[in-house]
Amino acid sequence: MLTNKRTVTVEFGQCDPSGIVYNPNYFIWFDVSVHALLARGGVILKALISEFGIDGIPVVEYKTKFLAPARWGDELTIETSVVAVHRCAFDIQHRVLNGGVLAVECAETRVCTAHDAEQGRVRAHPLPRKLIAALSRP
Amino acid sequence: MLTNKRTVTVEFGQCDPSGIVYNPNYFIWFDVSVHALLARGGVILKALISEFGIDGIPVVEYKTKFLAPARWGDELTIETSVVAVHRCAFDIQHRVLNGGVLAVECAETRVCTAHDAEQGRVRAHPLPRKLIAALSRP
Amino acid sequence: MLTNKRTVTVEFGQCDPSGIVYNPNYFIWFDVSVHALLARGGVILKALISEFGIDGIPVVEYKTKFLAPARWGDELTIETSVVAVHRCAFDIQHRVLNGGVLAVECAETRVCTAHDAEQGRVRAHPLPRKLIAALSRP
Amino acid sequence: MLTNKRTVTVEFGQCDPSGIVYNPNYFIWFDVSVHALLARGGVILKALISEFGIDGIPVVEYKTKFLAPARWGDELTIETSVVAVHRCAFDIQHRVLNGGVLAVECAETRVCTAHDAEQGRVRAHPLPRKLIAALSRP
Repeated sequence: MLTNKRTVTVEFGQCDPSGIVYNPNYFIWFDVSVHALLARGGVILKALISEFGIDGIPVVEYKTKFLAPARWGDELTIETSVVAVHRCAFDIQHRVLNGGVLAVECAETRVCTAHDAEQGRVRAHPLPRKLIAALSRP
Repeated sequence: MLTNKRTVTVEFGQCDPSGIVYNPNYFIWFDVSVHALLARGGVILKALISEFGIDGIPVVEYKTKFLAPARWGDELTIETSVVAVHRCAFDIQHRVLNGGVLAVECAETRVCTAHDAEQGRVRAHPLPRKLIAALSRP
Repeated sequence: MLTNKRTVTVEFGQCDPSGIVYNPNYFIWFDVSVHALLARGGVILKALISEFGIDGIPVVEYKTKFLAPARWGDELTIETSVVAVHRCAFDIQHRVLNGGVLAVECAETRVCTAHDAEQGRVRAHPLPRKLIAALSRP
Repeated sequence: MLTNKRTVTVEFGQCDPSGIVYNPNYFIWFDVSVHALLARGGVILKALISEFGIDGIPVVEYKTKFLAPARWGDELTIETSVVAVHRCAFDIQHRVLNGGVLAVECAETRVCTAHDAEQGRVRAHPLPRKLIAALSRP
């Protein structure tokens, strides 16, 4: 299934007083990585939202392990892969490597949501076929 | 004119590897301070946007001086005051005090904007009268 | 065991273009909540680090479920409780309530770390007794 | 004098509920741009700090004008140039272009600081010669 790899350099302002990455930054990187993954599959999320009238594909679950710290100036490789595609949701795996060593791993689930006019609230919506096709690409 | 004072504690994650506040955080605090200032004048920005069909009141200018650093655990007082009210814009002054010492000062200008359907773009819009009344309150 | 409750208001700048909280902000709130929890138990983390020569108590694991979105202006209650205390680590549970509804839940594990001069690297370190006492307080 | 140009793509999470870049992000980009500028001149700030025993080169002043908004997916070019070099400080100009249009401009001053053991506090310190050489490079 779809996979993408990108590199980020740890910036000064992403580190905390103990000199390591302040961990909420990993979740910002994971979000950018999902957008990059979809783009690699040919899907620009902003365009998908307009085309299919969905609200978006928010995260519903993260399971994250921080195995080793990263410091100002480190170059991190973030590998992001689709693990499973469901009717309204899909599962992703992120692996952050720092100098070849696994530093962080994260299992993420996103669900497609849309406004339900009858019920007057947001609810799960089947993944657009175009998105399923992108996620399933080798 | 309208003035407000609030206190923030410098959190661990708002500091950088040199142990002082990473400066973009001041601009987040200033934004929250403007919302708090308006609320003190009786105006909730979210409601104002809906009621008057404006886009918002984005910042168009900041002039900021950083005079003294602040560190993890410091308690900062942020004083925010309206300095001038114009037709489509208003000027604000922020003063950040750390233990009674002036640490940061910032002059900010915000302009009211709305979508111009004829020109198909965002442009300046006269301040809603309700907003002018709030800003002018002693 | 030790528990704490605090309230945060969702600010404009913490929301994304879909109008809901951008999820990395929850991890910032969880970090602040842990500091507040420890303070409630009488432990200021900054002072603990100096006193015991430890590096800190970084997060090693998060398991997070996002059950309902939160929007600009929502008032969130964050309940944070110690769940288990181990030799070098402890487990925490965060529950974020939005208008009485459970919006986010997160199981967090933190480990005490210190620099090991012999091995020249950071490693797990027994929790200082003062920290154990604080975490175990009712 | 030294100049650098880099490109950033506006990410989803850098935009606010009005769909435009939340302005504190510009100051994060400016900070990264200064590090990139120095690196282009052959100076890695982290190494400079170790080598010369300085605390850093914090920002003491920003004068910023926001001329046009930027949106999710926009590609921004950030041009950063040294404008003047003083004994303990230097001046920088940032220009953010969005589709060829000037969107933000910012005049920034940074000062070199070091711990003064006699006075027991941080104070201005002459710029290391290596830094002056880098800043003055064409």
